[in-house]
Amino acid sequence: MSMSRERGARERLVVIGGDAAGMSAASQARRMRGPDELEIVAFERGRFTSYSACGIPYWVGGAVGGRDELIARSPEEHRARGIDLRMRTEVTRIDVAGRRVRARDLESGAESWTSYDRLVIATGARPVRPELPGIDATGVHGVQTLGDGEALLDTLDRTPGRRAVVVGAGYIGVEMAEALIRRGYGVTVVDRGREPMSTLDPDMGRLVREAMEGLGVTVAGGSEVTKILAGDDGRVRAVATSDAEYPADVVVLGIGVRPETALAREAGLPLGAHGGLLTDRAMRVRGHEDVWAGGDCVEVLDLVSGQYRYVPLGTHANKHGQIIGTNAGGGYATFPGVVGTAVSKVCDLEIARTGLREKDAHRVGLRFEAVTVESTSRAGYYPGAAPMTVKMLAEHRTGRLLGVQIVGREGAAKRVDVAAVALTAGLTVERMTSLDLGYAPPFSPVWDPVLVAARKAAAKVRATTSA
Amino acid sequence: MSMSRERGARERLVVIGGDAAGMSAASQARRMRGPDELEIVAFERGRFTSYSACGIPYWVGGAVGGRDELIARSPEEHRARGIDLRMRTEVTRIDVAGRRVRARDLESGAESWTSYDRLVIATGARPVRPELPGIDATGVHGVQTLGDGEALLDTLDRTPGRRAVVVGAGYIGVEMAEALIRRGYGVTVVDRGREPMSTLDPDMGRLVREAMEGLGVTVAGGSEVTKILAGDDGRVRAVATSDAEYPADVVVLGIGVRPETALAREAGLPLGAHGGLLTDRAMRVRGHEDVWAGGDCVEVLDLVSGQYRYVPLGTHANKHGQIIGTNAGGGYATFPGVVGTAVSKVCDLEIARTGLREKDAHRVGLRFEAVTVESTSRAGYYPGAAPMTVKMLAEHRTGRLLGVQIVGREGAAKRVDVAAVALTAGLTVERMTSLDLGYAPPFSPVWDPVLVAARKAAAKVRATTSA
Repeated sequence: MSMSRERGARERLVVIGGDAAGMSAASQARRMRGPDELEIVAFERGRFTSYSACGIPYWVGGAVGGRDELIARSPEEHRARGIDLRMRTEVTRIDVAGRRVRARDLESGAESWTSYDRLVIATGARPVRPELPGIDATGVHGVQTLGDGEALLDTLDRTPGRRAVVVGAGYIGVEMAEALIRRGYGVTVVDRGREPMSTLDPDMGRLVREAMEGLGVTVAGGSEVTKILAGDDGRVRAVATSDAEYPADVVVLGIGVRPETALAREAGLPLGAHGGLLTDRAMRVRGHEDVWAGGDCVEVLDLVSGQYRYVPLGTHANKHGQIIGTNAGGGYATFPGVVGTAVSKVCDLEIARTGLREKDAHRVGLRFEAVTVESTSRAGYYPGAAPMTVKMLAEHRTGRLLGVQIVGREGAAKRVDVAAVALTAGLTVERMTSLDLGYAPPFSPVWDPVLVAARKAAAKVRATTSA
Repeated sequence: MSMSRERGARERLVVIGGDAAGMSAASQARRMRGPDELEIVAFERGRFTSYSACGIPYWVGGAVGGRDELIARSPEEHRARGIDLRMRTEVTRIDVAGRRVRARDLESGAESWTSYDRLVIATGARPVRPELPGIDATGVHGVQTLGDGEALLDTLDRTPGRRAVVVGAGYIGVEMAEALIRRGYGVTVVDRGREPMSTLDPDMGRLVREAMEGLGVTVAGGSEVTKILAGDDGRVRAVATSDAEYPADVVVLGIGVRPETALAREAGLPLGAHGGLLTDRAMRVRGHEDVWAGGDCVEVLDLVSGQYRYVPLGTHANKHGQIIGTNAGGGYATFPGVVGTAVSKVCDLEIARTGLREKDAHRVGLRFEAVTVESTSRAGYYPGAAPMTVKMLAEHRTGRLLGVQIVGREGAAKRVDVAAVALTAGLTVERMTSLDLGYAPPFSPVWDPVLVAARKAAAKVRATTSA
């Protein structure tokens, strides 16, 4: 690492963070500009690049064979494409005025400055780790990084017991519940919310809870964890809430993540209400022409509510990286925003949502009609037709689609994509009733479940509008 | 049946045709208006109402247990809802000026007039039955009606042989190929087109052919059937084309259907270039305030090409019926048109299309960029990730999506719905690259296959636009 460098025709792009957003940006910038035009230096404090954190529950559960299957591109592969990748090197300061970053080699401890012409901040997220008594007991694991996955697997392989407690009933929590079921554990999921999956309305969350209970999971809703109890050997033995104690040989924390923006804050870069960096449509940090940010460290515009949200998902991170790389490489691309789509599963239960929940709509002052319908994934007479429940919110009077939630079995979750596109396009539920969706008995009832919901929502909008 | 009736407060709605469009219209009109306000008389020449013709291949193939499972609502059920349903009664004339229809009781032969205030024409389609030597041999079957299905099953149960020839390699043809494979037949599919599934571009049809060949089907493309050969017993024994002869113990005709509009033509109602009735957006027959038409006897506006097409699909028929019933019942609803979505499968091969093929685009004067990509249904590392090929057409310069075709395995077909909604909304492929589609490893790669195609298409549009 050089303290300074000659100014010349060749510019330098510095990337902080070697995962989805950062390395997608680096790779795309490299596609736009060859090494003669643009030097690309990327810093990653960990041991891995470009891996699928979303895949960790499936690796832990055994559906995915090994850690390396989750790695989309290794450091060596990135280097072979002309990216000067510095692994185990942590950026400790961003000097925006001086256009340079300070980084520490975590092996040697050596620190130095690297100047940049263009900077990409892709520092990701850090898991929420509540300050609970006993949180550091042996056998308490997060599942955000590949290292976390390795540590958890090591515990599972060595733990004699068979009881697991998952703290948090969001996506990570329910996916980890599946993973632990698959590994033969008796699983308890503890969550503060009354129903699991608080990204759904409680009436839909109830369906998730009932299905999880049907899988043998104990779902302890409305439970605040007060402490984690360890034995004399320092190993976890139970999780205590205000009103119960759940024996545990292993504890998985799946409470969620926050944007990792300490560096950005220290550098005086603009942060939003959720602690994420604020960017413009081109993913430039606001007010900074040559600084971009993307992935789990930024807030994104929710196109339905018109407000900024924090939505740490790999699919957004990849898109951000692509857009940043294009712009940092001298091209033009924008990220219009999200509509809040997410899909997940617990064993054969599929869960999906997009757009606004009831409380989101209330919060932004949107009045709505809500309907819920039951339908099936295939024609009712076709083998394997699986039930699903679709909830749909439409704006009062205008009938504009506001959100969809789906809980069902095979074939349920990805149906939410139709609603995601409809939200993007601002379609009304009345217009949706005539959508030309694919129909054949093995794939859908003659009225696709999303259309059944749209019909009911449209009827309700009509009825309340004429009143 | 009365020759005339008293004029009073109660109006009479007459429906011609007791299947999807007609009975959906009748049922919805009944929901809108009670029997005191609206009398509803429906004529059906066959023995069944409201059945799923699309389900016949699965019944023949054994996936669906019995005929009655395909019947959504029986004559008795319709009558119980206050619809005066006359089965085995064929309408032989429509007297538009006199506001009456003439019908024949097919059992007794008796004919009489029934007057109407409002009329719904839902006469459906008739199968194409080429005038070939030998076409009437025993063992040659269509598969349009439940009666056809029964007759075919009877032949299959009684036929000692094991060789089947399917004439036509469209949806019906490929679905019947699957059904016959499941019944243990050696199957040959003969089609005039070079590749099967002419609703796809030939490069995508080739993938279907290769997959069908992989299933052991002989696909004889570019073959015109010249005659059907029968033995001395009158039973089919082979199908002859211009250059080959295929032994056959049973022959299934899956060549397609045409609108059944002889009655409408005789009544002077407006027909389009494809022989279907022409309606306005409210599904009213053009120029006729109190006459509606829907289902397989009408042409529909293709929203992508701006031209009228003939698209006989049960899903449209149901939508038409719903809209007609609302309007005929005094409400208001419209059918904006179709984008040309269709999904099908042959065993585990899934096939989907929406929008324009290359030749459709040429025909309407649209210049386009076409791209094809390979992707998978799930994250590459997730078990069951199945390959799929996505072809995408975007308009030159504007980048507006024009069409998508998908051939793949599990999880491929219904992805076309995203494109169907994007076509409806007029999205560009550039905008599509940022669509917020559901992502989790069991459901999609981090870039959904449709987004992978959109990225490639957007890049091509950009490259050719800047040139």
